[in-house]
Amino acid sequence: MKMGRGVEWAVHSCVNMAWTPAGEAVNSARLAEYYKLPAAYLNKQLQFLVRAGVLASVSGPRGGFHLARRPENITVLDIVLALEGPEPAFRCGAILGNVPEPDLQENFARTCLVSQTMRQAELAWRQALARQTIAGIADSMERRFPADKLKALTYLAVE
Amino acid sequence: MKMGRGVEWAVHSCVNMAWTPAGEAVNSARLAEYYKLPAAYLNKQLQFLVRAGVLASVSGPRGGFHLARRPENITVLDIVLALEGPEPAFRCGAILGNVPEPDLQENFARTCLVSQTMRQAELAWRQALARQTIAGIADSMERRFPADKLKALTYLAVE
Repeated sequence: MKMGRGVEWAVHSCVNMAWTPAGEAVNSARLAEYYKLPAAYLNKQLQFLVRAGVLASVSGPRGGFHLARRPENITVLDIVLALEGPEPAFRCGAILGNVPEPDLQENFARTCLVSQTMRQAELAWRQALARQTIAGIADSMERRFPADKLKALTYLAVE
Repeated sequence: MKMGRGVEWAVHSCVNMAWTPAGEAVNSARLAEYYKLPAAYLNKQLQFLVRAGVLASVSGPRGGFHLARRPENITVLDIVLALEGPEPAFRCGAILGNVPEPDLQENFARTCLVSQTMRQAELAWRQALARQTIAGIADSMERRFPADKLKALTYLAVE
């Protein structure tokens, strides 16, 4: 089970957008260059975030992406679900309903403890991801890697 | 991000083996037939569980699989890790180390809050899966679907 690499790129991209002055968009080709990422693939990830309402895109020569809402209101879970899809990792196949003379009334996805255990684990995972916001990560980056914000802002600034 | 369907099959297979009288092995072709699953694929999953020390296999005409340890000591996490691999879903690509003039001393997988958040979420998920054992699921099945244990034991019994 593997999360796409785009999630890491998207979170760091959002952190950069949280630092960018209001009214300015971040150019995704420039962002890809800064982090040495494949530009077309990064752009696709950012488009998924637009579709999910996390980012907004601006066209034109100074175009690019910016956060669609305050960084306090964007969680890591929002980004993971936008890129990986909303379905849980475990999908109950209800194989207890495949046995000879099955109980056809039973909703095994609800009542079977295998399914319940998987659901609880998925919930615990999602809750942990929902506790961290882009604002929280941006603050932490500034404290831990103080040179990085200035470096990114300088590199990504609209000329 | 999607978990293989084999996890569900493997957990139910282990529950059946928890019910099987000591000294008897469960035939995997018969198990596949009982749950209407692809026999070769189920067998492969059970082989992975043997490799992980969850099951033991017995060859010969009355051969098959049985639990390698007590069902109290087999957790859902053991089965998930055996089939899905031990790597966490998120793998830090340390893209903060790709920027111009990066801090080469920094271990971003440890110090970057993106990576830390993903690690905490993975841990919460694993802890939830580690709390549920095959014994716990077998008990729950007996209570909730009382006819199923007898049906399975009859169907899977060595003739």
